[in-house]
Amino acid sequence: MKAFMDENFLLDNETAIVLYHDHAKKMPIFDYHNHLSAKEIAENKEFENITEVWLGHDHYKWRAMRSNGISEDYITGSKNDKDKFMKWAQTIPYCIGNPLYHWTHLELRRYFGIDDLLNEKTADKIWDACNTKLKDKSFTARSLIEAFNVKVLCTTDDPVDDLKYHRDIKADDTFNIVVLPTFRPDKALGIEKEGFRDWINKLSEAVGYKINSYNDLVKALKERIDYFHQIGCRLSDHALEPIVFNKGRISDVEQSFIKALREETLSQNEIMQYKTAVFLELGKQYRQLNWTMQLHIGTIRNNNEGMMKLLGPDSGFDAIGDYTFADALSKSLNELDKNDNLPKTIIYCLNPRDNYVIGSIIGCFQSGDIPGKIQFGSGWWFNDQRDGMTEQMKALANLGLLSRFVGMLTDSRSFLSFTRHEYFRRILCNLIGTWVESGEFPRDMELLGGIVEDICYNNAYGYFGIEVDK
Amino acid sequence: MKAFMDENFLLDNETAIVLYHDHAKKMPIFDYHNHLSAKEIAENKEFENITEVWLGHDHYKWRAMRSNGISEDYITGSKNDKDKFMKWAQTIPYCIGNPLYHWTHLELRRYFGIDDLLNEKTADKIWDACNTKLKDKSFTARSLIEAFNVKVLCTTDDPVDDLKYHRDIKADDTFNIVVLPTFRPDKALGIEKEGFRDWINKLSEAVGYKINSYNDLVKALKERIDYFHQIGCRLSDHALEPIVFNKGRISDVEQSFIKALREETLSQNEIMQYKTAVFLELGKQYRQLNWTMQLHIGTIRNNNEGMMKLLGPDSGFDAIGDYTFADALSKSLNELDKNDNLPKTIIYCLNPRDNYVIGSIIGCFQSGDIPGKIQFGSGWWFNDQRDGMTEQMKALANLGLLSRFVGMLTDSRSFLSFTRHEYFRRILCNLIGTWVESGEFPRDMELLGGIVEDICYNNAYGYFGIEVDK
Amino acid sequence: MKAFMDENFLLDNETAIVLYHDHAKKMPIFDYHNHLSAKEIAENKEFENITEVWLGHDHYKWRAMRSNGISEDYITGSKNDKDKFMKWAQTIPYCIGNPLYHWTHLELRRYFGIDDLLNEKTADKIWDACNTKLKDKSFTARSLIEAFNVKVLCTTDDPVDDLKYHRDIKADDTFNIVVLPTFRPDKALGIEKEGFRDWINKLSEAVGYKINSYNDLVKALKERIDYFHQIGCRLSDHALEPIVFNKGRISDVEQSFIKALREETLSQNEIMQYKTAVFLELGKQYRQLNWTMQLHIGTIRNNNEGMMKLLGPDSGFDAIGDYTFADALSKSLNELDKNDNLPKTIIYCLNPRDNYVIGSIIGCFQSGDIPGKIQFGSGWWFNDQRDGMTEQMKALANLGLLSRFVGMLTDSRSFLSFTRHEYFRRILCNLIGTWVESGEFPRDMELLGGIVEDICYNNAYGYFGIEVDK
Repeated sequence: MKAFMDENFLLDNETAIVLYHDHAKKMPIFDYHNHLSAKEIAENKEFENITEVWLGHDHYKWRAMRSNGISEDYITGSKNDKDKFMKWAQTIPYCIGNPLYHWTHLELRRYFGIDDLLNEKTADKIWDACNTKLKDKSFTARSLIEAFNVKVLCTTDDPVDDLKYHRDIKADDTFNIVVLPTFRPDKALGIEKEGFRDWINKLSEAVGYKINSYNDLVKALKERIDYFHQIGCRLSDHALEPIVFNKGRISDVEQSFIKALREETLSQNEIMQYKTAVFLELGKQYRQLNWTMQLHIGTIRNNNEGMMKLLGPDSGFDAIGDYTFADALSKSLNELDKNDNLPKTIIYCLNPRDNYVIGSIIGCFQSGDIPGKIQFGSGWWFNDQRDGMTEQMKALANLGLLSRFVGMLTDSRSFLSFTRHEYFRRILCNLIGTWVESGEFPRDMELLGGIVEDICYNNAYGYFGIEVDK
Repeated sequence: MKAFMDENFLLDNETAIVLYHDHAKKMPIFDYHNHLSAKEIAENKEFENITEVWLGHDHYKWRAMRSNGISEDYITGSKNDKDKFMKWAQTIPYCIGNPLYHWTHLELRRYFGIDDLLNEKTADKIWDACNTKLKDKSFTARSLIEAFNVKVLCTTDDPVDDLKYHRDIKADDTFNIVVLPTFRPDKALGIEKEGFRDWINKLSEAVGYKINSYNDLVKALKERIDYFHQIGCRLSDHALEPIVFNKGRISDVEQSFIKALREETLSQNEIMQYKTAVFLELGKQYRQLNWTMQLHIGTIRNNNEGMMKLLGPDSGFDAIGDYTFADALSKSLNELDKNDNLPKTIIYCLNPRDNYVIGSIIGCFQSGDIPGKIQFGSGWWFNDQRDGMTEQMKALANLGLLSRFVGMLTDSRSFLSFTRHEYFRRILCNLIGTWVESGEFPRDMELLGGIVEDICYNNAYGYFGIEVDK
Repeated sequence: MKAFMDENFLLDNETAIVLYHDHAKKMPIFDYHNHLSAKEIAENKEFENITEVWLGHDHYKWRAMRSNGISEDYITGSKNDKDKFMKWAQTIPYCIGNPLYHWTHLELRRYFGIDDLLNEKTADKIWDACNTKLKDKSFTARSLIEAFNVKVLCTTDDPVDDLKYHRDIKADDTFNIVVLPTFRPDKALGIEKEGFRDWINKLSEAVGYKINSYNDLVKALKERIDYFHQIGCRLSDHALEPIVFNKGRISDVEQSFIKALREETLSQNEIMQYKTAVFLELGKQYRQLNWTMQLHIGTIRNNNEGMMKLLGPDSGFDAIGDYTFADALSKSLNELDKNDNLPKTIIYCLNPRDNYVIGSIIGCFQSGDIPGKIQFGSGWWFNDQRDGMTEQMKALANLGLLSRFVGMLTDSRSFLSFTRHEYFRRILCNLIGTWVESGEFPRDMELLGGIVEDICYNNAYGYFGIEVDK
């Protein structure tokens, strides 16, 4: 029996142990997708207490607390930070089998050096110990990133963002981590959503002219892409819920855009044709600038209307959808590809039942451009746990080349989430080690070590075209 | 190598063994969902022979025999009971990897004390041994329940049922197990089904007045809910094939109901709006009485028309469907929740590919009311086997709180199925033990033992609000 | 730790080892479904070099090379065979976790006696060694089949094929393997496809009269079925993408057929009704002749238009679809069954998420005709790997009778793919061995050995009704 979370945590065999400790552990982090605030990095935010940094935005923990019957007062409500922390401490022992149990204790260990298990008995002591450390200058936003050998960190940003904080960070010689924006134009595609016209107005402001037509829109988006590119952006990100493909005449799309600006209601067909047209235009631009396009598929969001009104989006009320998408995804990639407009692409899948669909579709659009041009993204969100990551990697390996995988991203809103790379790396090494130990792959440690190091860092370094001291 | 079905059957590690033998085994059974006949319990039915009690209603065994090329004569046909038993004995060795192999031998051991493996050679001996025991008074319906330390047993009942046998059981001081009805109003929602009008007439009889309008229907259903409540009922059950959500105007629903009473054909839209309206009314009632609502999703039934005509429903010709449901399920729960009408709910999923969909949706509707308010039901029907139960529990654990799970139910038509709780408990302990032994959770036996005992019994005891000597 | 691909490759326990070496290994191969060329067998084709026989038609390898960023020139393009081989050698070490890694090395070992690992360093040596052997007379198409103890080999053929080569093979006394055609009438059902009318004209030529009506078509198809039957054909094969069920009036179907001959556009409804009608007619014929009908479900094909134009179909640009099919599949089988027209049927599923749907649907149409009348086909195409085959067998075992499974098929276009039977058999033995060793099934080696031998060969021998020296 192994002790809980010892140095060989998640490493069940000798090969895995060697791969992790001799190869994975030493690699830097290329965090090409997260949701940290550039402002907080620029301003090098300090934290009041462990509740602020740990529970403040973490809808994973909120969901667990709600499942434990904790009143919302102690989650997002008016109770004080200590009381909230105590409720989390009370909940965590119930999280057996949940990644939160691992993340929580990895974070306590790696960031705060606390080896105790969190529960009601230890909560007071841990509260004090964490807060003492947080008062220290060494626990600012920047130091939390620096402590984990992060080389690149890509935030998620609206096309209308002025990227002031990214420029500030770039200009600051005291901070050497490459922090870049990611272009996330969901609002440009959301023609059917409330607030579309307002967003178009913001875009107008950003480009400095009135957007009166679909042509203006495309022009403006291109300008924003160019602007992001100048700041160093090399990735875009799309939440496609669901992905659609319905190519119409551009004249119709132009009409639909005008109707939307007038706040007239569009038909499903008009909505789909508009989305398709904008998507294709953007893909073409990404391709021209050698960007990587990220596609996120499979969510159903804001399922709880009451809580949505109370707390807004991203508060823990999203779920996994079960809609079909293979046809629309394939057609979208194909439409770009046949005109040589398909950029490097990463496809993330929220419903684990669809791993093999994604894994097989990417194989239809690979090319001589670059190894692993079309990537199957790492186990995302609800799949960001041992089973989910293992299944994503097995599907990728069975259907394509795991060796060419660009690996892990934090995808987190918390500065304490870089331990997820350790978590991923252990799972990766364990999977490969298991294959080797069972005689399914030769024990060539040079080859294996190289594969592990590639997936941890080198593949991403080679793939994204982001300049960084390797 | 472990011997077949020894005392550590399904327990692959030391922690699992301790958890099962020291914690799980001793817990009583809270059987909150089965399909036993209240009449047979009330009358304390005696059994002719092993074929009657074992093969008489067991469509799982029937399917296996058909897959083995056995003629229907020996399954549901006119052959004598001994011959039928012999055909089952001939089939069972072919059931490698099927839960029937385990259930069959668990039942022979736990109920009849027979350790032999069933096959053609042993069939005669086992036939005689079982039948000798069945002639004994100790093998009546009631004794079969009592032998397994069952505290509560909830049957499945039509709203028009007079519950005479439940009242008889309650009134009988010689039998101490709490036997309660479950309110299953599928026929009230089945407006598009043949026999709808007949059923409404039965409901009229049950309430003592003519049901002429949708208003009357809602009133009548409420009265039946109240009547069930008085007898002790605290659960309802819905088979949703598929679940729909389409909220219309009540005036339209009223019209649709009138049309249905006149046996006019309804449009899909009318059918869906009617179902949605009735579902929402019922949910509200359940909430007011603090009932638990069970939703069963994912079947396609009566696939074989020829056999349907011959044998009727529930004869082994149902299968797993692949329709989408996430959107309708989410909207249904949301509609109830936003008006504070969402009762405690258990969602069962027949298609195992959808475990993560269910597991993520329940997390959107948890609340401070009670821990685990919205439950992901145990591996159901075709998933009632080692892989299926393990996957359900892993999905629940990865996405929510396994610790708050209300655990196993027999869901069986046979008095010999209480061993399925043992089966489940071994699988549960093994899963938890595996996590502990691999260093993924601390070996705190007090905490772990408590979690196991909770899932086996205490959680159900606390959740359903059914009075019983604990 | 086990060495790579030693004699106990994929066999993780003692029972598995005994089952494989004492039972599985010795069984002949009943290859009831592949895509080899009857012409090449009839003419006993010889091969220029390892690239021709190994990379010439293998779209699995092509996909891997594209995923590795290899230019198309080296895959299907104009580069010379040696250069192409070198690019494959360069790619294979990246195939960790992919079945290609296993297949490649199994094929090098079993066909060429080469134990070296293929990579850039060994490539020259292996190129020479293979080509030396290929120059030997012992490496012709026929000898490659004979070396693997193949008893029966069923190719895949168009109904208009004259089966000349099958007749030639049959007439040739120097070759004792039974090579039979399979009737694959996809083009007869493809009324909406380009080339439908041309195909009907070819069918006209094959039967010797003009096909002017739906009646003529049905008559012609029956004649071709009879012709195939005379040559020894006992299987048909349908690619259903997706399967549809929509039974219309025959008069409407007749109209649709006439419209299609006139190249008028059909509605979705007309297309579906036509497909349904032809499918039902064919099923009835198969049933009368005691054929086995194979249904392949779950692909989306030719996703990459650019490459489709360049290379045509079956070049590595197909993927797994996510459309629903349970209802249409169930209704199709039911419609045949209720008129006693349902033939023996094998259903293959490309999307592994649907294993439990297929596994449960087959159970609704079993009968006393023959054990395992409706079969769940072995892990197909993208699922033809350790995880995929294991999951298919577990689903089959959990829901039905694995013991009655007709087992593996090569489904390959390469003469070097018979090692896939070894691969399958090892995985089968390992699965069963694992159950036994963990105490889930008794260690009755006679029973277990029989089950293994049945799945490897005897079940297929008994099921297909093909005459062969057993």
